[in-house]
Formats: sequence, C-alpha cells, structure tokens
Amino acid sequence: MEIKVYHQILDWNEDVSGQVKETLKKHHTILINIMGSPGAGKTSLLKELIQALRNKYSLGVIEGDITTSIDAKTMADLGIPSVELNTDGACHIEAMSIQKILPEFDLDQIDVLFVENIGNLVCPAEFDIGETMRMTILSIPEGDDKVVKYPLMFTETDCLIINKADVLPYFDFDLDRVQKDYQGVNPGAPAFVVSAKDKSGIDALSNYLKEKIDALL
Amino acid sequence: MEIKVYHQILDWNEDVSGQVKETLKKHHTILINIMGSPGAGKTSLLKELIQALRNKYSLGVIEGDITTSIDAKTMADLGIPSVELNTDGACHIEAMSIQKILPEFDLDQIDVLFVENIGNLVCPAEFDIGETMRMTILSIPEGDDKVVKYPLMFTETDCLIINKADVLPYFDFDLDRVQKDYQGVNPGAPAFVVSAKDKSGIDALSNYLKEKIDALL
Repeated sequence: MEIKVYHQILDWNEDVSGQVKETLKKHHTILINIMGSPGAGKTSLLKELIQALRNKYSLGVIEGDITTSIDAKTMADLGIPSVELNTDGACHIEAMSIQKILPEFDLDQIDVLFVENIGNLVCPAEFDIGETMRMTILSIPEGDDKVVKYPLMFTETDCLIINKADVLPYFDFDLDRVQKDYQGVNPGAPAFVVSAKDKSGIDALSNYLKEKIDALL
Repeated sequence: MEIKVYHQILDWNEDVSGQVKETLKKHHTILINIMGSPGAGKTSLLKELIQALRNKYSLGVIEGDITTSIDAKTMADLGIPSVELNTDGACHIEAMSIQKILPEFDLDQIDVLFVENIGNLVCPAEFDIGETMRMTILSIPEGDDKVVKYPLMFTETDCLIINKADVLPYFDFDLDRVQKDYQGVNPGAPAFVVSAKDKSGIDALSNYLKEKIDALL
C-alpha cells in the first residue's frame, strides 16, 4: 500500500480544532488521539485494537512521526488506510495538520480514525487536534511516578492504558499507586492494564472502546 | 537537606548558553546534561554515577522536573548540593534557567554539575543549556527503533547509555541494531550498555566519565 507523507504546518489557528471536529461530525467519524512516551507501545497496541475493531467498524490511521515512515508502514501492512504525518522535528501534532490530512480519507467510509501522536509525555497533551477522545498509554517500565511527574497527560485524557503488563514481575512498579494517582487527577476515568504482547486485557479495553464508539457514532 | 525550587524563565537569549559556558570555565566546573525519555532511568543512573564519582570529584545536581520535587529529594538524600528546576509544564530546560541557578552553587567547590533534563526524547536535544557534555539515555523497554525515529537526541550527544540491560531477555530488542544506528548518526561516539539496577556496565561508564572529566578539568 502506498504511504502518503504529510509535513506538519507550523502556523497556528485557534479555530482549527473546532473545524476539524465539525468535519468529523458531518461525516460521522470519530477521531481517537493516542498519546504516550516513546516506546510506551502505542503502535503495538494500535495494531491489537485494529484487529479487535476492524470487523465492526471501518478504520483509518494517521501516524505521527518526527521523521520516519516505520509506523505508517506497519499500518499499511495491515491493510488499513494510513497517512503519515512527519512533524520534521516537532514534538507534537497540531490541528492544522489534521485538517490538511482529512481529505486524504473518504470520511463517509471511516467510522474511527486513529491518530498516533509523537512519542512524548509532555507536549501533545497541550494541543487539541480536533479529537473526539484521547487515550494515554503508560508502560510499566517507565515507572510508577509518571502520573504525578507529568500530570497534564493524565488529566487531559479519557482513559489510561497501562501497557506491558507481561513484564510487571521484572520492575518495581506499584499498580495501585498509579491507579490512585490517576484517580486523583482524573476522577472516574477508566484505567486498563494490558499487554500488547501476550494480549491480556485487550478484550476489556476493546469492549470499552466499542461502547464509547457506539455511543458517539 | 533543604530543596530550593526555581521556575523556568521563558525569555530566550541567544548568548545565554555562551555566558553559562564562560561562567563554568572560570570556575573549572563541568556541566553534564543528561537527557532521555520519561522513565529511561535518568535519576537511577545518576544516583549510581554519583556514588562512583563522589570520592574523586565534588558534585552538584540541577534536577529538571515539570512540576514535582521527587528527583531533587532523591539527590538531596544523597547529600549532594541539589537545586530543583520546575519548568511549569515546559518540555525542556533552557540556558536562561541554568544561568539563574548557577549562583546557588559555590562553583569553585564543584567539579561536576549534573543537569537532569525533562523526560523527553525530542525537545531537550534542541537546546544548548551551556553544557560541557551531553549524555543520552535509552532504555531497553523503549524499543530498538528509537535512534532512527528520534535522531536529533542521538546525534547531538557525546555518548549513548543503553540502560535497563537486566531486562534485555524480556524484550525484543536488537542491541546490534541500536549500536549500528547510533554509529550511523554519530560516528565514533561511545555507547555503554548498563543496568542501574544490577550495576552491570556502571564501572565502564564511570571510567569513561572520569577520563573525560580529567581531560576537561
């Protein structure tokens, strides 16, 4: 599958995220913004979610990457309409780029458009890209102090996914502490403990997403 | 030990990193900028390096953190002069903040001042904070594709430390690939495979640092 590559535009327009939301609403498309550190497992988890959701919904992916096409190729190999967004060094995606890319998709044919943001636990949380919902991924090896150290990423999200549960025995990681810290900054928001590697917890997470998507569509 | 907290100043001045360098040179102080993703193990590794170097050199630490004092407390507990720099949401440290903090230290009594940058594999690499040298930390769980995906962080550094070697058996991580990618973007620069947990590789790394420090002092 051919991979289209967009480069991020750095002009900023306050209204753009609202315009993106309008466009998505018109076409009944949900945009899910996936955020997390480099190596948290965003791409691997997205692959699992695509497999879990593709029979029920038609999907698309915008792959944010600073410079390479690695992740967009992964998505294209799954046969999912996929566009790469190169930020050319920038540490987050902005709504302007999403607006520019949307016409690449036949939105009437897309129920759910995933955006994999740049690997970064800080900046992406500050930018509304026009998303319908946000998912924050934290992986066990990153440590259990991340919610208090990088609060915005955990406050400004709809759900937390604690990934790489398969390696929990090898790290000093207090799951209860993370869940408590998360409830402290984002009361009532759900958290899921999963492993994209051994697939544990993926069913619970995809059931939650299906419920959310059905309610939003 | 009391912890002083500074807040980052966002004004920018092109000459500031040069002024910081001048000040450090005058006092024969080396500033080492430690960079890496959230949870790469910057603080744990710094603790090990402090133990390895403190008998030979007098040390100081500036702990960059978005909002908390967790890491500065860790350093103060070791009895090392330590100042916290809160960036209040910003994703990197700038030279202006370092300049403002330097008078907190008796630089004539400090050989090596470590700066632990914000956990971020993107932005900190773009900012010269007046450092004498840079160390980039990549941890095994982050994955072996990070050098090509976040190249600036690996190009603009003096050495690469591949941390969390103790969990290598539990991850699909191709050490050779990372070393090759790193040599591709930063030819001749040394790479060390270490574990701050089981202390493997720490001796080799601290010997390298001692050599560097002796040459620079």
